[in-house]
Amino acid sequence: TIAMYFLGIDGGGTKTEALICDEFGQIIGRGRSGPSNPLFIGKDTAFENIKLSIDIASRYYNGNMFFDSASICIPGIKRYKDEVKTQLLQNSKNTYIDSDELNAFYGALAKPFGIVVIAGTGSFTVGINKRGEKAVLGGWGPIIGDEGSGYHIGICGLKSIVMEYEGAGVKTSLTPKIMKELGLKKVPELRRLIYSKDFDRTIIANLSNLVHESAIEGDPASVNIVNTAAAHLAELVNRVVEQLKMYDGDYDAVLTGGVSNFKDLILVPFTESIERENINIKKPQYVPAIGSLMIALKESGIDVYAQDILNSLNATYKNFVL
Amino acid sequence: TIAMYFLGIDGGGTKTEALICDEFGQIIGRGRSGPSNPLFIGKDTAFENIKLSIDIASRYYNGNMFFDSASICIPGIKRYKDEVKTQLLQNSKNTYIDSDELNAFYGALAKPFGIVVIAGTGSFTVGINKRGEKAVLGGWGPIIGDEGSGYHIGICGLKSIVMEYEGAGVKTSLTPKIMKELGLKKVPELRRLIYSKDFDRTIIANLSNLVHESAIEGDPASVNIVNTAAAHLAELVNRVVEQLKMYDGDYDAVLTGGVSNFKDLILVPFTESIERENINIKKPQYVPAIGSLMIALKESGIDVYAQDILNSLNATYKNFVL
Repeated sequence: TIAMYFLGIDGGGTKTEALICDEFGQIIGRGRSGPSNPLFIGKDTAFENIKLSIDIASRYYNGNMFFDSASICIPGIKRYKDEVKTQLLQNSKNTYIDSDELNAFYGALAKPFGIVVIAGTGSFTVGINKRGEKAVLGGWGPIIGDEGSGYHIGICGLKSIVMEYEGAGVKTSLTPKIMKELGLKKVPELRRLIYSKDFDRTIIANLSNLVHESAIEGDPASVNIVNTAAAHLAELVNRVVEQLKMYDGDYDAVLTGGVSNFKDLILVPFTESIERENINIKKPQYVPAIGSLMIALKESGIDVYAQDILNSLNATYKNFVL
Repeated sequence: TIAMYFLGIDGGGTKTEALICDEFGQIIGRGRSGPSNPLFIGKDTAFENIKLSIDIASRYYNGNMFFDSASICIPGIKRYKDEVKTQLLQNSKNTYIDSDELNAFYGALAKPFGIVVIAGTGSFTVGINKRGEKAVLGGWGPIIGDEGSGYHIGICGLKSIVMEYEGAGVKTSLTPKIMKELGLKKVPELRRLIYSKDFDRTIIANLSNLVHESAIEGDPASVNIVNTAAAHLAELVNRVVEQLKMYDGDYDAVLTGGVSNFKDLILVPFTESIERENINIKKPQYVPAIGSLMIALKESGIDVYAQDILNSLNATYKNFVL
């Protein structure tokens, strides 16, 4: 028999990861390249990086690779569906092209139902119940949403040092840290920096690392910020549970994205704020790129939840350290 | 004796107003021109509009006008102090050149001490106690501050319709109003609009008018937003009272700026949230341009709080409807 191959891609604002596996879930190639969110870097660069990640992942294969199914999961890619098919996936029988919600979901849970909260620069949640109903909440961006995200944690850090400066807040070790990080001498200089045209919002999201550091040290303002973020993220879970009526048995809920690197600091208050007892907080199972492979396997009718397939994906992924 | 003349200018992101009066507080000229905040429109246009407003205000005066004192109150003008003096105020003996905080303060209170909360697109407060100590709180801009401002009220309006859309909030009459105002059909289209490069923050501040309208109609979400804004603005007052230890007798506090157009809707909860009984909420006395004239008169040692001067400024200002 001829081997079947599957392609899974997870891409975004900073990088693109491609994985190739066979029908037994054995990963035979992995490739990484630059950003592929066309909203940020344009269609041409996005396509180049997608192609590059595929080329790297298939570099040990002799000849032109044919995929039974391919899954491309990148925010903003949907509008280029036809061009992705004709320009990048000529060698694929089935294709799945969509944003990065579902692959993050399957990768984190390794189950067809449950709840995944993604808290990176932004924040949102995806829930699917046992009846297959799906809900996506949050993700309204830094201006009108994204509570609990790295960006929001950074904003709360800035607000804390502003309150301390105005004599209305508690003393916080964030002030010297953030001033140093931003290269400022005095808090009022924040205005000129933050509102300058070239200021990049990701700088604020990165300040969440300093909040994390100060919270570990026990800084009360920082601990409070992390607890508030945890409550916001748990609120997303509570709302999705209500909306999808997820009372019919146990469900796993996973917190993933950069903010989940805060570990117990955020996981403990997050777990405490989950209202229903049938929701079990778990650690993320696999990376989003494996989630994308799972979608590709599903497209070809393969039962990706079979334990041997999952074990195989997990074991062989570790062979490809980049 | 030769008459003494004084020039007062209040400028900002949308317009510039110049007033000229004599030493008795009689206004003899008023001029209005376009924006003069150099941060927004550049130094050259700012200077042109300042000059134009002076030219219009002095159009009935025969010959070159000499000012005993001139006061220019415009955000961001301070860095051009020397150029303003040499290029625009050659004919002035004394000059005051600063941002628009103090003139708004004196105009609103017509007293040397008290508290003024300015809630327009942004929000901040200026307090001066009877010992002459001054504090400015707030004004950290839309990203890390400005709670209670028109912008913040607009954001809360958007968040309300997002929560309603996600099935987690109360029904609100804001949804059809805001959708119509922004030319959108569905709530999710907000993302594409708000995060597009050309989106102007003042559009969000203008949504506060719709929140005002819905609050008048009794829409619970909108009433809640206005009450929250009022509490934020009162919090600025409470903090300035503590910081300046304003317990030594009565003080007037004035709410001014676009949000004060909400009248009792905001003034009642605002007043209820003021913690100290020696703080008396008053209506704004005069416009900021008159405040700027008061600064100019003070610069020449004239007692601007004398009732006849204040009466004269008020009475003669009304002669100049633009």
